[in-house]
Amino acid sequence: MDRMAPQDELVFLPLGGSGEIGMNFNAYGFGAPDDRQWIIVDCGVLFGREGNTPGVDLIMPDIRYLAERRDTVLGIIATHAHEDHIGAIAHLWPSLRCPVYATPFTARLITGKLDEAGLASKVQVKEVPVGGSLTLGPFQLDFISITHSILEPNLLAIRTPLGVVAHTGDWKIDPNPMLGEATNEAALERLGNEGVLALVCDSTNALVPGTSGSEAEIRENLAALIATLKGRVAVTGFASNVARLDSIARAAKAAGRRIALVGRSMQKMVSAARETGYLKDFPTVLDESEVADLPAHKVLYLCTGSQGEPRAALARIADNKHPHVQLGAGDSVIFSSRVIPGNELAIAEIQNKLAARGISLLTATDHHVHVSGHPCRDELAQMYRWIRPKLALPVHGEMRHQMAHAELARTLQVPQAMVPENGQMFRLAPGRPELIDEVPSGRIHMDGRVLVAECEGLAKDRRAMAFAGLLVVSLVVDHKGRIAAPPVVLGEGMPEPVEAAVLKAVEDTLDKNKRSDPDDLAENVRRAARRAAHDAWGKKPVTRVLVSEL
Amino acid sequence: MDRMAPQDELVFLPLGGSGEIGMNFNAYGFGAPDDRQWIIVDCGVLFGREGNTPGVDLIMPDIRYLAERRDTVLGIIATHAHEDHIGAIAHLWPSLRCPVYATPFTARLITGKLDEAGLASKVQVKEVPVGGSLTLGPFQLDFISITHSILEPNLLAIRTPLGVVAHTGDWKIDPNPMLGEATNEAALERLGNEGVLALVCDSTNALVPGTSGSEAEIRENLAALIATLKGRVAVTGFASNVARLDSIARAAKAAGRRIALVGRSMQKMVSAARETGYLKDFPTVLDESEVADLPAHKVLYLCTGSQGEPRAALARIADNKHPHVQLGAGDSVIFSSRVIPGNELAIAEIQNKLAARGISLLTATDHHVHVSGHPCRDELAQMYRWIRPKLALPVHGEMRHQMAHAELARTLQVPQAMVPENGQMFRLAPGRPELIDEVPSGRIHMDGRVLVAECEGLAKDRRAMAFAGLLVVSLVVDHKGRIAAPPVVLGEGMPEPVEAAVLKAVEDTLDKNKRSDPDDLAENVRRAARRAAHDAWGKKPVTRVLVSEL
Repeated sequence: MDRMAPQDELVFLPLGGSGEIGMNFNAYGFGAPDDRQWIIVDCGVLFGREGNTPGVDLIMPDIRYLAERRDTVLGIIATHAHEDHIGAIAHLWPSLRCPVYATPFTARLITGKLDEAGLASKVQVKEVPVGGSLTLGPFQLDFISITHSILEPNLLAIRTPLGVVAHTGDWKIDPNPMLGEATNEAALERLGNEGVLALVCDSTNALVPGTSGSEAEIRENLAALIATLKGRVAVTGFASNVARLDSIARAAKAAGRRIALVGRSMQKMVSAARETGYLKDFPTVLDESEVADLPAHKVLYLCTGSQGEPRAALARIADNKHPHVQLGAGDSVIFSSRVIPGNELAIAEIQNKLAARGISLLTATDHHVHVSGHPCRDELAQMYRWIRPKLALPVHGEMRHQMAHAELARTLQVPQAMVPENGQMFRLAPGRPELIDEVPSGRIHMDGRVLVAECEGLAKDRRAMAFAGLLVVSLVVDHKGRIAAPPVVLGEGMPEPVEAAVLKAVEDTLDKNKRSDPDDLAENVRRAARRAAHDAWGKKPVTRVLVSEL
Repeated sequence: MDRMAPQDELVFLPLGGSGEIGMNFNAYGFGAPDDRQWIIVDCGVLFGREGNTPGVDLIMPDIRYLAERRDTVLGIIATHAHEDHIGAIAHLWPSLRCPVYATPFTARLITGKLDEAGLASKVQVKEVPVGGSLTLGPFQLDFISITHSILEPNLLAIRTPLGVVAHTGDWKIDPNPMLGEATNEAALERLGNEGVLALVCDSTNALVPGTSGSEAEIRENLAALIATLKGRVAVTGFASNVARLDSIARAAKAAGRRIALVGRSMQKMVSAARETGYLKDFPTVLDESEVADLPAHKVLYLCTGSQGEPRAALARIADNKHPHVQLGAGDSVIFSSRVIPGNELAIAEIQNKLAARGISLLTATDHHVHVSGHPCRDELAQMYRWIRPKLALPVHGEMRHQMAHAELARTLQVPQAMVPENGQMFRLAPGRPELIDEVPSGRIHMDGRVLVAECEGLAKDRRAMAFAGLLVVSLVVDHKGRIAAPPVVLGEGMPEPVEAAVLKAVEDTLDKNKRSDPDDLAENVRRAARRAAHDAWGKKPVTRVLVSEL
């Protein structure tokens, strides 16, 4: 009997962004199981947090599965320019070495990042026009304009010989996005009419009823609000929301205020937008120091730092340590932003410092000065009405968002909904979609300048030290293994009396173990030291014994 | 000319709770400056957070100023039994050694804590009846019943020969608190008619418009919601909100469900309430293991852990590691609670684990199942209308809440408003109130079992280790100061190649510094090691050199 030729399959493999809002990384494979070609959609970061991952700035997906087969990776396609979609390209590209595709604004920002990483000359960043198309091996991609809180967000229609997948990236339905393209509803409907295998879709706001609202409302509200303010005004928000920056600039102009951009990413985003043909009417931006000389009511600062980032402009202003920007009683700070979960205390700290100096705080809690960039439940329902997929694959969310999204899809009569986890490989065609494999996945930490797999446990080890310090005992033994010098104890991060108690316990142990083998001795000393610390303090520190041999 | 006798003064001194929501500690002093007698109102804790204060469970005010004059401290009066008002008594009492006064439910809980600390026989806890009075030296105190999210909250009318202060403690205006006394509006009005020097008042919700709502609404809503649920139901919330527990128990009974209390503080609060005469109709509580044998629709668990506390009942249920309580698809968890700022991610983690197992989540975001226990702006305005103080002293808040509260008081025509900071001493009478002194203040950490002043920097040192690990170099020198053994390097919490790079740098330094004095040598080695770590890793770890002398 002849063996049948292995059949082509279309598979979906998320390596990031499922189970977390951040570090989006999704791959699609086409071909026979041993002969797949891959495309990657988005390659983003997640930001580290002191409590969970101390000393880690950025977290990226562990992509070893694709890195090991990088010759079959045809390209990275970025749906849009948010950090959680493009921030890992410069770090992970060296293990992939494939071209990168994006629309002009996104491409401009990716190039900037590659430049900073010294990779600009090595990586091919290929521009796809807004609304354009791209063919990579068996994949034919259409970039369909949608709306989001950044310029040039795209839904990708990914066509293969076995069918079409719609990959939303981040989106909302903003009927009036103020800058850039509107949602190409006609294209979405046409795509739905074609018949779509699967909709891989943003779950961020799947728990939020209704709709997310429009930038148009915010433009109006900011203009009205800023018109009422006396004194200096600072507005902080997400620098990547260029339409918002434009709204603020217009509000400033209408109120007779000149603007200055405070913080590097504000300047970077405005430049990228202008270089790619946006913001043609943006008012002339003054230098921070020029603005400082104007009367208070003639000034508006656009500041980074809405999330309480300690090194951003607003934190320095709140500490009154900014070289050019000083605010005080009678001035106002508008937070035209939401609080990203986990940043509550950092933001509160800055707001408290500002309030203590008599500065008025105007936030999205008390004024309608922010809308989300992600689809609420009515918008999700609309997308399912357009696309009518056979399968819903909710991504870009934590588990509770993905589960609620899948449940919503079921109520919308989508025949099948599966909640993917990072590392799970789903066959989308041929046949009924199913989970077929689990591949290695996980997280990579940017720890200092070094990439370290989370599973190596460095950050976890440091968390243990943050909890109970580090106890070190240094022993000196001669060539016969006898103790040759008094032991030295270091109790880093523990109350002072602990060191003395440990030293005594170590000395007692040495007295009792004079004839031990050095390894046994070290282990006995380690245990005695740890026990003594626990007795004196109530915590068991990580304990290391260093043995110097003469 | 005769010298005038030093004049009696009434002073107010907050040592905790100003600038933070937590660790409330306020003192009132009466007498001539060198001859003051003191009362303390509340003595609470703040909970430590891994990011800011790793390894610290509890944070308490630094009360050295009063400890140094403890013979003049007449007593600690607790307004109510929340941890941020009574949680530090057992820890700080040894440096104060004065009697403690509280109404019966509060006294019962304080006694329980003292018992656990082995102090029950030493501390006099004196019960004041609900609505009762107390005289301590020059202070005559009336306990006026108000409403809050716990049994027996009291506003204190503090009468002195120089005038009256109203100290609210935590409060709201709940027209229908469901359990315990209603707000004694008549007494508040009478107090206002007497003329009040100062209102020292809760600022928690000073940024929130409107009113906080009533437990009565929540009782209705919980009953309606629980009636609709199938499967097992778990409700989590604040154990100290006894009226809420009662509402949940009633809802369970009405829905034909038996209840079990899961978690130690649930059991403790219900016991304390019953022992002091409340909850007379509370249904019989079953044991967790008994309930587990009932059909799913006959079960309701009242669980601790609404704030994502990793060792509480709900966290163990979410991990499917609870010995008796198992939940799964078709079951529901109601969060009848708010998210305390800073706990967002811990709560989300638990919710994600529950959602992943198909458990329905019902929270205050999507169902009206929680009301705050603190006064919103309309309630604050009502309190000012009752009390009509000459001075507003907003406490119990972060700076932005206190500033907004002071601003609100000004709009209500309170003649003077001052925002106190911990350690500031205000003369309230005679004469116009003013800031007259700053005394030592700060925070004390419960670090393991040891109390450590925050300013000693232990937690900060451990944060530094969490960021960049600890680098230890061990050297052995002979009696002439010559290196006598190969150096040993420990790089705890750093990527592996760092140790090797550091060892090489240390060896080079030793080669170059053969004739140095041991102290200089150690310092040179420390610098070289730190630099080498930075070169290899991009971070500068805390670096220690241990020198053993033969």
